[in-house]
Formats: sequence, structure tokens, C-alpha cells
Amino acid sequence: MVQRQVTMRDVARSAGVHPGTVSRVLNPRTRELVNPATAGRVEQVAREMGYSLNPIARGLKTRRTFSVGVLIPDLENPLFPPIIRGIERVLDAAGYTALVASTDGEPARERQRLEALIARQVDGFVIATAQRRHPVVADAIASGLAVVLVNRTIDGGGAFAVVPDDRRGAALAVAHLAGIGHRSIGHIAGPQETTTGLLRYRGFMEAMDDAGLAAGPGMVAHADAFAVAAGAACARGLLAAAAAPTGIVAANDLLALGAYTAIAEAGLRCPADVSVVGFNDMPFTDRFAPPLTTVHIPHGAIGARAAELLLERIEDPAATPQTLMFEPTLTVRASTAPPARRPRRDGSGATAARAPRGAGPRR
Amino acid sequence: MVQRQVTMRDVARSAGVHPGTVSRVLNPRTRELVNPATAGRVEQVAREMGYSLNPIARGLKTRRTFSVGVLIPDLENPLFPPIIRGIERVLDAAGYTALVASTDGEPARERQRLEALIARQVDGFVIATAQRRHPVVADAIASGLAVVLVNRTIDGGGAFAVVPDDRRGAALAVAHLAGIGHRSIGHIAGPQETTTGLLRYRGFMEAMDDAGLAAGPGMVAHADAFAVAAGAACARGLLAAAAAPTGIVAANDLLALGAYTAIAEAGLRCPADVSVVGFNDMPFTDRFAPPLTTVHIPHGAIGARAAELLLERIEDPAATPQTLMFEPTLTVRASTAPPARRPRRDGSGATAARAPRGAGPRR
Repeated sequence: MVQRQVTMRDVARSAGVHPGTVSRVLNPRTRELVNPATAGRVEQVAREMGYSLNPIARGLKTRRTFSVGVLIPDLENPLFPPIIRGIERVLDAAGYTALVASTDGEPARERQRLEALIARQVDGFVIATAQRRHPVVADAIASGLAVVLVNRTIDGGGAFAVVPDDRRGAALAVAHLAGIGHRSIGHIAGPQETTTGLLRYRGFMEAMDDAGLAAGPGMVAHADAFAVAAGAACARGLLAAAAAPTGIVAANDLLALGAYTAIAEAGLRCPADVSVVGFNDMPFTDRFAPPLTTVHIPHGAIGARAAELLLERIEDPAATPQTLMFEPTLTVRASTAPPARRPRRDGSGATAARAPRGAGPRR
Repeated sequence: MVQRQVTMRDVARSAGVHPGTVSRVLNPRTRELVNPATAGRVEQVAREMGYSLNPIARGLKTRRTFSVGVLIPDLENPLFPPIIRGIERVLDAAGYTALVASTDGEPARERQRLEALIARQVDGFVIATAQRRHPVVADAIASGLAVVLVNRTIDGGGAFAVVPDDRRGAALAVAHLAGIGHRSIGHIAGPQETTTGLLRYRGFMEAMDDAGLAAGPGMVAHADAFAVAAGAACARGLLAAAAAPTGIVAANDLLALGAYTAIAEAGLRCPADVSVVGFNDMPFTDRFAPPLTTVHIPHGAIGARAAELLLERIEDPAATPQTLMFEPTLTVRASTAPPARRPRRDGSGATAARAPRGAGPRR
């Protein structure tokens, strides 16, 4: 009869500690970090279970550091802390520590962070900084590192990724505005080198088509960053168009906040004059003036699932890459309302003609 | 003539790279992480300058990992990302990487994070999780780790720390409310086991005394966490008091948001019925309904200074502990206004008597 090999996980379970603690106790370099009572208990359990008697298995196991690198483009975007919280919830339960580094979206900084974490011998990475064509990430995956992408993914497959259904989210936003009577709807698109920017844009265009509302020229503005200032610049452009939109779908909540700024600057009101829909439902959107209607993404669940996938990938380097897509919902708050004035049908029946505006308030 | 010893920093300067890159190139375990052209240039410069000819100096130098651990209690509190940004700005310039871990304020998790980062051989720590009596932090400092506390500090000295002047901040808030006519001012105090909670409370009480406005019984509510729900619970208590305050000073912005919730629940309006002052001026406070009057703390500067102190401490383990206190200012927005009704003086001349209220709105 073959007896099953005792694993570090078995010892951890018997001793009532995390596998990471067992690893630290059995590694002479880190033993002193564990409190003496716990360390003594772990050693005794390991001895009783015959775990320390297998130096080969132990060598294999202690190569694990039970730490994981998490790369974030911008910690000041409130979207990311809930993702990190989800990641930590799963890693904590498995005895792993998340080490978070932010990159400012700069490739040089990203490579440096990745290198620093590899030098610190992390067991894998959750990466939220992916761009569609991304040499650093592609190299990391090709070199055999355990990597799971979160929120954004790369073009061309080959990666583990957990993302929102961006197209569907944009479609929900368009359907909401169209459903309450908007015919002239603009889009503040995110950076097109990210899948979130590209797919939300495509989802917007497809949904406009489906609703019989062709997005006219000047009705899509491209932001160079997912940031408030970029959103304001784009919204100024949309509001200055000949047929300014009565509704705006922004590719994320920071861009939507920028739209609030531009609407106020133009002497207009949200939602009385212009409705705004955000994307993400990041923390505090319910506190804004006005509270933001936005596409809700379950970021905690996305982060947690990414961490689970990473742990599976660490256990099984031969696992097949997979992309998990989470379904969004729409959270309707006070930034959207039916358009104030009946649209005047033009020849196409699609766009709402608007009276020319001066700098003053329009009612 | 004694020639000055060539340092890793000299090599980095000549090669036009960060010291961390030089360290990685000269360490066989990490050399492959640096792109080959850069690595070649660094090796050539090091050879030319005679740097690699001194194995003892090199051994000493390469013990550095050019990484720093940053412990944060709660990444979802928007106060911390600007502090981290300030830390990263300074560390980046010096070729260091910040590895951020969050603790949820739980001592067990904090010890585990600290251990994991020590096992990853970071060169030092910036710690934002300090409580006044804090065995984990005290042990870390006593064991000779390079540690700088940020935002909060510990009782009893012996630590490097960069903090806001919490007492003065609370005094600014009281002076503002008193200056626009409030006589009945309440306080939502933060957890008293943190210096931020304790000193803002003390600053509030002292400033009330100075203004001749004794804070009556029931006018201070103690929150068990710096969080929205705790702020709402406290504000409900304050608003139910016999002499409910016309102004509330909250010990941070999340507590102030909780006060907004409680004010709305009671059918009251901010600022028409109750003024609210927050503390921190965290991101997005200008976007809230109403935009929040709050004590502004220069968090980016505080983070940057903490990182500078840490780099000094890493260079010089014998450096004398010091506490740097940053001056706050008051940012006045729309959550504060003169009290609607003239206070009716009671015997003490201190508190405003108020008509009993039902559940309905009060005007």
C-alpha cells in the first residue's frame, strides 16, 4: 500500500497555521520571524508527521516564498483598492502575502517593479497594468512566470485573465440613456491601447447601431488617460459640437467626473441639461454631486477570482490559459434623466438638433 | 593622498542608471533581469572605475536590495494613496522600489506582512499602521530595522516619524465654526489608540476651551474605526442629544461622510441645519454633496519626507530619531455655514438650546 506523501499543507492544517508559517518555521533564515510558541508547535507537528524527514520534498516546498507581486497602474484611481482587497482576501486564506507596486503606467517603471519583485522571489504576479500589446507582460508569461491579468488583458491570447465584460457594460449604458429618451449620445473613450478603452468604445458603437442611433461625427472623444482632466477636455469637445449630446457615456468614473467639470464650466447642469453615465462604480460615486449613474463592476470578486486562478497556476504550471469575464450591471443614480427638450427629428431621425448656445446657462 | 572609495552610487551616476540597477547587474542572481545593453554598460563602467575590484565593498553594497516595505492599514481609505505616491516619488529617484502591503489594522496580519517583507530582505519600512502602544512596531525598531512611521506615531518616543500637526488641525476646524457663529459644536473622535484619534480629540477640547465653548456632555462621540459607518453611528448619537450641535468636527473625512448620512436620515440638511468639518482633505472631498470643508494635510509631502528620512536612516543606522510635524491648513467648501438660528443663551452661556425635534425636517 502506497502512503500518500505528507505535504506542507497537511502540516499546516494539523498545526492550525498557514502553509506560509510552516515554510518560515522550517527555513532557518526565517524561523526567528515566527513567534517561538508557534514555531515549536509547527516543528513538533512536522516531526510527528514525518514531514521534515523528506529533504527532497522539503527542498521543493521551501522554494515557495508565499508572496505574490501585484502591479497596479495608479493607486490613486479608487477602482484598484477594491480589486486589491479581493486579491488579498484569497491570498490571506492561503497564507500568501500580496506585495503591491504601482507603475504610473510607465513601461520603464513597470519593468523595474517586475524585476525588483522577481529578485525578491515572489511566486507569481497579478497584473492590472496590461496594455493590448505589452512586451513586458508577454516576456514575463513566455519566461514561465505565473501571471494572471486582472481588469485588462492583452491581445492575442495566451494569458490567464479576469476581466469585466466591457462591451456589455457600454451597451447597458447606451440602452439606459436611449430608454429614457436620449437620441444624441456621446462617448468619452478611454485609451485605445487598453482592452478596457477599446472594448467599451466598441460596445458603445455597436449598441448605438443596435438602437438605430448612429453616433454622428464629433460624438466620440478619445481620452489620453483614464483621468479627470482628460475627461474634462473630452467633454468640452463634445459639448462644443454642432449637435451636442444630451447624454454622455464615459469609459470610466474619473472621465465622468471630468464631464461634470466641463458641464458646469459651460453653465449647464447634470442631469437637467446633460446626463452622464460612468463605468466601474468605484467607491464614493454615490456621494458625488450628483450621485453618478454608472456601470457596476464587481471588483472585489474579480480580484478574488484572479488570485484563485494564480494559486491554481502556481500549483500547476501546465494549466491551460483561460479568460474569465464578469457580467456588469447598471447602477442608476441621479446623473441621468430624460432629456429636457423633445428632440427635433432631422432627416436621419437620429440626432437631436440643438439651439446654438452662448456661455450663459441654458434652461 | 587617500583616494575616495568608489561607491555603487558613483558607478550608477557614471552609467546613467539607478543604484538599484547597478546592484542587480553585479549580483549574478539578478543580472539577467536587466536588459543586456544596460548590463554591459554598467559592467564596463564598474570595471573602468575599479568598483568590482573591491569584493568587500561590493559584498557590503550588494546586501542592499533597494526595496522598501510600506505597511498601510486600509488601502480603501483614499487618504493613503497620496501618501504612497509621495513615498514612491522619492524612492523612485533613489532607485528603490516600494512594496506595499495592507493590514486591515489587524495585529496578526500586520506581523505576518512584516515577516514576509523581512524574509524578502527589504532594506527598511515606512509604516502607516502605528498605534500608540504597538508591540510589533516597537519590536521592529528595537531589533535595528530601519523604520519610519508616517501619519501616525507611537507613544514614548524612539521612532522616526512624519505626521500632521493633529492638534492644530482640530483647532483650525473649531476656530472656523466658532468664527461663523456656532456655539454648540460636537466632535466625532477617532479611535483613541491612534495618535491621530487622540491628538485631534485633545486639540478639539483645547480649542473649545480657548473659544470659551465648553463641550457639553454628549457632545463628543467616539468612533471605533476611521470609517463611514462608524461616523454615521456617532453622528446619530450627537444629533439625538438634548442640545444637538449646529456644527460637527469629524476626526477624518470618512467620519464626516458618515455624518452626512446621519444628517440626511434625521431629515436635516448640511450645512443649513448642521455644518460638518472633515479632516485630511482626501481625494474627491471637493466632489461630495455638499463639497466638504476639511482640514487639509499635505499627504504627498508627508509621504515624500518619510521616504527621505528612511533613506537617511538606511545610510546611517546611528541617526537620531526625529519627529517631523507638518502644518495643516483649512479648506473651506460648502459643508459649513453660519447656524440658521440665533442660539438662545442658557445659564452657562455656552450651549445653544434647541427645540425638541420629531422625525420630520426642521427648518
